[in-house]
Amino acid sequence: MENAEWNRDELLKQSTDLILEYLEQKKYFMARDELMKYNAADIAEMLEEVSDEASLRMTVILFRLLPKDVSVDVFSYMSSDGQVDIVSEITDKETQFIVDELDFDDKIDILEELPANLVNRILEKTPRSERHLINTFLNYPDNSAGSLMTPEFVSLKKDWTVREAMEHIKEVGTDAETIYTCYVRDNAWKLIGIVPLSTLVVTNSDTKINEVMRTEFVCEYVDTDQEEVSDDFQKYDLIAIPVVDKEYRLVGIITVDDILDVMEDEATEDIERMNGVIDLDNSDSDYLDISVIQHAKNRLPWLLVLMIAYIFTGMIVTNFENALSSMIALVTYMPMLMGTGGNCGSQAATLIIRGLATGEVELDDWMRIMWKELRIGVVVGVVLSAVNFLRVTIIDGQSAIVAVTVCTSLLFIVMIAKLIGSMIPLIVKGIHLDPALVANPAISSVSDAIALSIYFVMAGLFLHV
Amino acid sequence: MENAEWNRDELLKQSTDLILEYLEQKKYFMARDELMKYNAADIAEMLEEVSDEASLRMTVILFRLLPKDVSVDVFSYMSSDGQVDIVSEITDKETQFIVDELDFDDKIDILEELPANLVNRILEKTPRSERHLINTFLNYPDNSAGSLMTPEFVSLKKDWTVREAMEHIKEVGTDAETIYTCYVRDNAWKLIGIVPLSTLVVTNSDTKINEVMRTEFVCEYVDTDQEEVSDDFQKYDLIAIPVVDKEYRLVGIITVDDILDVMEDEATEDIERMNGVIDLDNSDSDYLDISVIQHAKNRLPWLLVLMIAYIFTGMIVTNFENALSSMIALVTYMPMLMGTGGNCGSQAATLIIRGLATGEVELDDWMRIMWKELRIGVVVGVVLSAVNFLRVTIIDGQSAIVAVTVCTSLLFIVMIAKLIGSMIPLIVKGIHLDPALVANPAISSVSDAIALSIYFVMAGLFLHV
Repeated sequence: MENAEWNRDELLKQSTDLILEYLEQKKYFMARDELMKYNAADIAEMLEEVSDEASLRMTVILFRLLPKDVSVDVFSYMSSDGQVDIVSEITDKETQFIVDELDFDDKIDILEELPANLVNRILEKTPRSERHLINTFLNYPDNSAGSLMTPEFVSLKKDWTVREAMEHIKEVGTDAETIYTCYVRDNAWKLIGIVPLSTLVVTNSDTKINEVMRTEFVCEYVDTDQEEVSDDFQKYDLIAIPVVDKEYRLVGIITVDDILDVMEDEATEDIERMNGVIDLDNSDSDYLDISVIQHAKNRLPWLLVLMIAYIFTGMIVTNFENALSSMIALVTYMPMLMGTGGNCGSQAATLIIRGLATGEVELDDWMRIMWKELRIGVVVGVVLSAVNFLRVTIIDGQSAIVAVTVCTSLLFIVMIAKLIGSMIPLIVKGIHLDPALVANPAISSVSDAIALSIYFVMAGLFLHV
Repeated sequence: MENAEWNRDELLKQSTDLILEYLEQKKYFMARDELMKYNAADIAEMLEEVSDEASLRMTVILFRLLPKDVSVDVFSYMSSDGQVDIVSEITDKETQFIVDELDFDDKIDILEELPANLVNRILEKTPRSERHLINTFLNYPDNSAGSLMTPEFVSLKKDWTVREAMEHIKEVGTDAETIYTCYVRDNAWKLIGIVPLSTLVVTNSDTKINEVMRTEFVCEYVDTDQEEVSDDFQKYDLIAIPVVDKEYRLVGIITVDDILDVMEDEATEDIERMNGVIDLDNSDSDYLDISVIQHAKNRLPWLLVLMIAYIFTGMIVTNFENALSSMIALVTYMPMLMGTGGNCGSQAATLIIRGLATGEVELDDWMRIMWKELRIGVVVGVVLSAVNFLRVTIIDGQSAIVAVTVCTSLLFIVMIAKLIGSMIPLIVKGIHLDPALVANPAISSVSDAIALSIYFVMAGLFLHV
């Protein structure tokens, strides 16, 4: 396998094609053997490809041919849609086996996706103590630290020696999600310290745990939003973080691999919101798995709100109908003025929304931001107006006074759009809403209305229409 | 400190205010003591706040009052702008000390930011072997695996026992960026296996390394783009990944904490590109640290390109001038039709661009995407047209035939905008460019032109203007 790394994607694709061929010829075991050359994450990807290219039935056949322990691992790497598909085709007993064997946090994830009656049947056969724990975990709100954590961590006592601690880790190690950070609790389960495994490894065996544990550490409360958790991972360079309840009792840990997924999901959510798509059913489903109706529902709210905004834009135009009909050439520049205003506004809004999300700018910075955008607006506006002056006079052959009208309007529109685009996200943040929700479409439509108003005022001033 | 976690942000803010007060009263040591209650990451954040709120001089005074080892740690957590600011105020000798003490990858990061003459002065005083290594690392292209990696890893021999390995780790452990994954090389430095520390800890001491090492693993080539590296971390749930050169020799490792920053930077880049901002000087500087001129330069390219696109939109309007002046009411609906088309197109484009980035959709899916968007377009178009029919007839009091013209146009515009918005990113991806670069503004302006064309054709059909 060694050289496989060079072109892993290419190799995966070739093997997938080979497997599809085997499947077509009903050479199931050869397909299985080809699959088994890869690790669980790759096999999961290839099985999902088989579902897409051949059929779900073929995927299930292959899945059943995998050794039991491999199949559980592969299952844990599949997308939640892929997991639900597999479960829909296998028996309850097989599902029960997989769920029992999964790591605790993967177990919770799949139980959340499965239909309620199946979850009940599975829980019936789960030992009572674990059933209780599962139910507790299923009740943590989506996107909270509680929903991300696993109860599988290594817990040490403060009066143990490093040697005792290492022996304990050797015993329980394989059941823990990670053993790289160990946690020290007092008798009331309160978290009192953490010890990285690296410290244990380099420390003398007779040292007591309370001499090496760190009593200052970052931890999260079960209700904390996942975005804050991910910010802390980034700020403090962590690979795991403890989660405590209101009484400061350690209830679980979150590992960094789950945070990578959180970061991707949060970025996707921001990007979609900024462009007027609201994920109404809050699913992490893939684009192609979301139904047409759900897609339409996610997109319609903003479009309908803006529809109302355009009533005002329409009114502005109507008010100006006489002037326009007396000089119809003015209509020619409407799309350019509105479009440029919208784009300038959304550029500024994008930088501020992202800056707020990454902590680059804060509400207190509003004066500095305003001053900066004002100057940027002047520079950008002057350049665009100059270019535009040439277009209006040379390409369109209009008179200088028309060009002056259009270009003066453009300058003011750019400046005001930059100011509005940068200030609206700050105001929205100020009233504790997500700035990404004041999507670019909204900023565009506000700047459309302003662009038209400025244009018509300028036309009145310069052209006396 | 224990309960400090509950409201860490709040606490940090209070302490920062207290420190600012102390500084004003010239109580520098009290300010230092307040600062020392926190860990390096927090201190770094507070020092940057002091720069903003008081002055850089105050920050440097505080920085110098920190114990030497703490100051190096704090320095490594500062933003690169903050680091450069500090270096500009301290002596070469102090800088030399910090650079010497930094972890290797942090050392490379700061050397990349410092002015060339200072870098040369520092390198002069660096031992020759390390100078050579530093120069090699400084030459890896930005955003490559090579630029992210550190040469500080634990290397084991395959014929060692686990006991020997653990002793080796105890010796070299504290110099390694992470000891959680150890690497096995043959005599030619070729990477032949990896051993997680967790395996060593739970394995019998007399076992040989080559019995426990994994020979199948994911690794990266020094030239690989950081986006691919971060995808692999996510797919395989890794905390470190080895980096090899063309001869498959292990040259460094990348740790997951650096990947969190990569993911944030890549998301920022995508978000900015999608909204028409191009980071021309490819800096990771904060919004407020970028000059007005650089901001203007980053934003002007797209605006200028679109300026040209609007010449065509203008032509379409001009062609239709006679019709418009014979029925000026038609102008009223132009902003709504163009705006809605633009928004629909950018919604579709956003989902596809993000889907391509996260691997949810692929080029091969284009038929399925097209079919999906077509149906979504019908649903969204029908709903918007119905709402709009009421607006045109009831609110605006226009005749039914005008309403039919506007609404039929709207239906077609929505459908075509969804198709174009979803297909353009796929085409751009097909010719191996970044789909995010075909920014939403571009899609808006294409759909503007199409919206106007459809509208005027419909007006010709229904209203015979």
